[in-house]
Amino acid sequence: MAPSRGRPLLQLPGPTNVPDRVLRAMHRPLIDHRGPEFAAMTLEILAGLRRVFRAEHGVMIFPSSATGCWEAAIVNTLSPGDAALVCEHGFFASKWASIASRAGIVVERIEGDWRRPVDPDAVADRLGDDAEGRIRAVLVVHNETSTGVTSDIASVRVAIDRVGHGALLMVDAVSSLGATDYRHDEWGVDVTVCGSQKGLMLPPGLAFCAVSAAALEASRRAACPRGYWDWEEMRRSNDSGFFPSTPPTSLLYGLAAALDMLEEEGLDAVVARHARFADAVRHAVAAWGLENYCLDPGAYSNAGTTVLVPDDLDADEIREFVRDRFDLTLGGGLGPLSGRVFRIGHLGDLDALMLTGALSGVEMGLAGVGWPPA
Amino acid sequence: MAPSRGRPLLQLPGPTNVPDRVLRAMHRPLIDHRGPEFAAMTLEILAGLRRVFRAEHGVMIFPSSATGCWEAAIVNTLSPGDAALVCEHGFFASKWASIASRAGIVVERIEGDWRRPVDPDAVADRLGDDAEGRIRAVLVVHNETSTGVTSDIASVRVAIDRVGHGALLMVDAVSSLGATDYRHDEWGVDVTVCGSQKGLMLPPGLAFCAVSAAALEASRRAACPRGYWDWEEMRRSNDSGFFPSTPPTSLLYGLAAALDMLEEEGLDAVVARHARFADAVRHAVAAWGLENYCLDPGAYSNAGTTVLVPDDLDADEIREFVRDRFDLTLGGGLGPLSGRVFRIGHLGDLDALMLTGALSGVEMGLAGVGWPPA
Amino acid sequence: MAPSRGRPLLQLPGPTNVPDRVLRAMHRPLIDHRGPEFAAMTLEILAGLRRVFRAEHGVMIFPSSATGCWEAAIVNTLSPGDAALVCEHGFFASKWASIASRAGIVVERIEGDWRRPVDPDAVADRLGDDAEGRIRAVLVVHNETSTGVTSDIASVRVAIDRVGHGALLMVDAVSSLGATDYRHDEWGVDVTVCGSQKGLMLPPGLAFCAVSAAALEASRRAACPRGYWDWEEMRRSNDSGFFPSTPPTSLLYGLAAALDMLEEEGLDAVVARHARFADAVRHAVAAWGLENYCLDPGAYSNAGTTVLVPDDLDADEIREFVRDRFDLTLGGGLGPLSGRVFRIGHLGDLDALMLTGALSGVEMGLAGVGWPPA
Amino acid sequence: MAPSRGRPLLQLPGPTNVPDRVLRAMHRPLIDHRGPEFAAMTLEILAGLRRVFRAEHGVMIFPSSATGCWEAAIVNTLSPGDAALVCEHGFFASKWASIASRAGIVVERIEGDWRRPVDPDAVADRLGDDAEGRIRAVLVVHNETSTGVTSDIASVRVAIDRVGHGALLMVDAVSSLGATDYRHDEWGVDVTVCGSQKGLMLPPGLAFCAVSAAALEASRRAACPRGYWDWEEMRRSNDSGFFPSTPPTSLLYGLAAALDMLEEEGLDAVVARHARFADAVRHAVAAWGLENYCLDPGAYSNAGTTVLVPDDLDADEIREFVRDRFDLTLGGGLGPLSGRVFRIGHLGDLDALMLTGALSGVEMGLAGVGWPPA
Repeated sequence: MAPSRGRPLLQLPGPTNVPDRVLRAMHRPLIDHRGPEFAAMTLEILAGLRRVFRAEHGVMIFPSSATGCWEAAIVNTLSPGDAALVCEHGFFASKWASIASRAGIVVERIEGDWRRPVDPDAVADRLGDDAEGRIRAVLVVHNETSTGVTSDIASVRVAIDRVGHGALLMVDAVSSLGATDYRHDEWGVDVTVCGSQKGLMLPPGLAFCAVSAAALEASRRAACPRGYWDWEEMRRSNDSGFFPSTPPTSLLYGLAAALDMLEEEGLDAVVARHARFADAVRHAVAAWGLENYCLDPGAYSNAGTTVLVPDDLDADEIREFVRDRFDLTLGGGLGPLSGRVFRIGHLGDLDALMLTGALSGVEMGLAGVGWPPA
Repeated sequence: MAPSRGRPLLQLPGPTNVPDRVLRAMHRPLIDHRGPEFAAMTLEILAGLRRVFRAEHGVMIFPSSATGCWEAAIVNTLSPGDAALVCEHGFFASKWASIASRAGIVVERIEGDWRRPVDPDAVADRLGDDAEGRIRAVLVVHNETSTGVTSDIASVRVAIDRVGHGALLMVDAVSSLGATDYRHDEWGVDVTVCGSQKGLMLPPGLAFCAVSAAALEASRRAACPRGYWDWEEMRRSNDSGFFPSTPPTSLLYGLAAALDMLEEEGLDAVVARHARFADAVRHAVAAWGLENYCLDPGAYSNAGTTVLVPDDLDADEIREFVRDRFDLTLGGGLGPLSGRVFRIGHLGDLDALMLTGALSGVEMGLAGVGWPPA
Repeated sequence: MAPSRGRPLLQLPGPTNVPDRVLRAMHRPLIDHRGPEFAAMTLEILAGLRRVFRAEHGVMIFPSSATGCWEAAIVNTLSPGDAALVCEHGFFASKWASIASRAGIVVERIEGDWRRPVDPDAVADRLGDDAEGRIRAVLVVHNETSTGVTSDIASVRVAIDRVGHGALLMVDAVSSLGATDYRHDEWGVDVTVCGSQKGLMLPPGLAFCAVSAAALEASRRAACPRGYWDWEEMRRSNDSGFFPSTPPTSLLYGLAAALDMLEEEGLDAVVARHARFADAVRHAVAAWGLENYCLDPGAYSNAGTTVLVPDDLDADEIREFVRDRFDLTLGGGLGPLSGRVFRIGHLGDLDALMLTGALSGVEMGLAGVGWPPA
Repeated sequence: MAPSRGRPLLQLPGPTNVPDRVLRAMHRPLIDHRGPEFAAMTLEILAGLRRVFRAEHGVMIFPSSATGCWEAAIVNTLSPGDAALVCEHGFFASKWASIASRAGIVVERIEGDWRRPVDPDAVADRLGDDAEGRIRAVLVVHNETSTGVTSDIASVRVAIDRVGHGALLMVDAVSSLGATDYRHDEWGVDVTVCGSQKGLMLPPGLAFCAVSAAALEASRRAACPRGYWDWEEMRRSNDSGFFPSTPPTSLLYGLAAALDMLEEEGLDAVVARHARFADAVRHAVAAWGLENYCLDPGAYSNAGTTVLVPDDLDADEIREFVRDRFDLTLGGGLGPLSGRVFRIGHLGDLDALMLTGALSGVEMGLAGVGWPPA
């Protein structure tokens, strides 16, 4: 049973702790979603999102979970029967592949080592083999939330260009944006998918698509059926500050506050804070005698660390212990990693003493299940 | 410019005024969306929704606007090329038809008089002509938010059954649920679509599908591609209190509170309150010498009244006047009704003095634009 | 039983409806009451209070109800055995007299007609008779909350000066500040007492003393024992932004927000709004065929109207009716007026439609108890 | 400059971190302070306070800081010229003595070692010398917030009784109630003074007096002038659930929630949690090589630990360091201890990971100022 006092620590790699300021911003009566005050707020939010995604062609907001924008990315740019190359390095890449597949896309996979980042050369090789251009999109997860491995998106773009292939580059930045340096335009990303509940410090409920000119061009020819996810209608409404269907006003209030917070701290400072905290977590993991699931130091995640436990420990037992004793929530192993790892989220609204509190909680949790052995 | 004091009145037929209690419930730290506390909350919410929709086969919650569940209703039960019969009596029926059409459904229309409810006999006639059973679904909007006309859903079901047609009956209850008596099971509805921001008194951001056994059966054969909207995955997750993708925890906190409020007041009392307030509004409209857009007294809406203005008045000028002077938001005319009507919402979290305040605001607004003429 | 929906209307002449913005401002973690952030906030608040009271020698904040600052005004400026002249025109003037009396002050009374304002000539007469200067203070309630009668403070000062008497002028502005034009310095007031829960739109819990140079001078000689209420210690702490004992941080957060709101609207606009609303209420009272307790149109209150009911009506029955049916709170008759009047508060965070809502509630309440008679 | 992210830790020995639940409870519109809903709330709160103070003759609530109830305790029970014996073992005992003195009480002092608890024998000795019974009250601070030393109240009562002296026993339980076992009736305390912002987990703004039959009896003869602080009027109003002047409704909402929280956790469990956390802090202090200001292990405080720093360190520099880097607020040295100690509060709404976070912050702060020396 969780303690009756104090404040929970939600150290998932998302959803993350929502700042009081965001909760307070959401605690407001609704305004008319077709009125001028609303339009002004939307336009300001959209401008802020363009700065945070570094995406000048615009970012769209959908009322949905991030999964919805995985789907939006696919159905707006591809046609049934098109192929998409998925760099399958973790649980969420697999889920995105499954969403593409359900939309009628032929999914080709690069089955990589989950403990290492995406290999740009492997992408280049596969695209090089695709002389007829069946592959219309490459799908990469920037930071695999399940593994704590961050891939190098810019290098993937370089690899695509090196072989002169025309595939769109689509990136899941769900748990990287706001934690890791991210540059939609500069890196040549065509579609970036994100959600509200990670580095953007909001509750879940909003998802985002940032687009490139090429993605918009592709959307004019893409034949996948689409209604709710249709970009064209969304962009037309957004231009005047509105939405094609009723938008989640409360979450937009929160988003406006969260964007203000990110800009006040400064994006570079935000990323630096995440890097510093991530490093502290890795030191703790090493001090505990445990292994970071990620094997490539260059790919360590700013957002979350996946910790392998020895075979004789049950990772879920640790998680339950710290949840019940300390109101500390850690992430569990997903898919094949179930029970073998726990995940420490260290992104979003986090400060040094929340982090040291969380780490001491993990340490006490390990002791609670008998680690290290006497 | 809106006054700097007091509290806005959001008299749209949705989104509606969010109760303080719901806002307060949403002002809480997030909990683990994969933990036991979350599961318990979800299961309780789902049970509450079944009682409110009166739908024993279950209600699903999607993070989306209600438009998303229009799409979910279609893609889970139909296959591309199937026909759907849409009773097109208003703006929102047209929009639903458009969503169906984008999903590859052949839309057949009964173009009714927008000022009157759906004619069950017309439905029976059209289905009677469909000997080969091409029509797989009848789409009806229970309360047309654009017109303030409420149709008789039970009679539509009777009409379908009378001609022995197997079409599914799909109902948009977005602005009726929580304002008007609604009985998913008893009326033989197969899919009910709803949103959070009307009678359920929440901010926008959640949408709902209530289903029948027949709808679930149809979903096993339906060939429309579907990922995010897939019912099967949703129901499987829901069974244990979880969601296939990250759910909007804050809105669920609010939903739990809103369901408690509805049950404390009692569904019958809620509907009776709405009927009483709607009647008061109609008396006011008559006293102003204005015309109710709805011509059939049996179809007057509990949720909102659409008021026709004389040709020499601009309905939007009235709306701007009351918005700027009184912070009172009224709905505008949608589609062909733009400028010709204004809409007074009277559903959701409303009490007698909010209503009389709003009506006095409209009356002063009418005076402000010169009505009645001297 | 109060309705289960909507929002209560607290139409007392205080406490008044607290704006959402103030409630939101109070919903924050505490900061160190001895740290620099706190000091900066205090100094900004004190500057704002000086502008609102128009009192350049400063305003002090006490954690207490306004009654506490009645006491502070007395014990800081007078000595046991000193006389104070109280213009006893209502319930609250009597209570202030009682507080003075308990502190050992000899209270002399001008027992005025409760239905009319203080008569400056009567003050001059009494002071003229006090050749030996036993009267050290004149106590006047600016707006008698119990009667809805506002007295002319500037004229009282003129009267005092006319007879060349050295008594301090002490004013209770509890329900006038923020509703009625108030000018501490310009009118020659020596001590102004106020509370947080009226025109300042806060919850109760803070009280205020604005002072003049003469009052501060008197405080150096005053011999009443004083600890908690001591001005000197308060002013010394306040100078650096702190308090002699732990201050109510949450209410100060709210006060900062409320002062911002008053300044954004503009003090003159605030008073004009109150005047307009008060006039509307008086029109309603007349239309109901009821009598304003205040008999002097020049003394009608901006803050609240006391309504006499015919002998065969019970004012409390009306109040209970509107409370139980409409969640509308009206003030009751105080002291000798119990049951004979009800009081409509129209100050603080109020807008036109809250007011028309409240008035329609009163009208329905009157009908509910049979007024006007058939 | 404080970090822009995360949540402040207010590790003062009061005010303490306010629980979200209490903040949420305070975020409500006001209700009529003279209506039945208010009365019911007050009566429930008063009953809850009696259980928490373990004081069956009642607890009174004053809108004020705790200093106000120091004054209330004096002026309701004593007469000018009466003597009070103050056990002066810390900063707050001195302040209470000063309040008594200002009220005309002759203060006699037992000047104890600030690093040790009150010596009951010394009290007995002094009272034994007071054959004529000039001493009418013994004033003891249960937990000296300035020193982190907790005295044994029950033993003081035993000492008083041993010499058969009739002095009232008055106790400041401001920082002990809700952190340390406290038994007003059982220990024979006559007046217990407390405030809202410590173990009761509220913002500052409320103060409390718990009384005994003897204290009430004394109040009938006590001749100190009193208005605002008068118990009789307060008790008469409280009996029906009301207050003699406008009570701070928002803080009462919070108090109701805080009392619920204490009762849900259970008073014994609350005290045990504080004892456990206090012990953890002392282990940390020892591990840092620093000295606990309190020299008597039997008097270690459950509420706060005062830490002596070596002569070459500036305690305030440490405090500024952790405030600016970590948003961690520690208490400073009061009076003669300024700069020589810092104080770690560990009471109120605190959980294990907030505490370990705070301790790691102190440790990093010590390192930041060069401790331990290389």
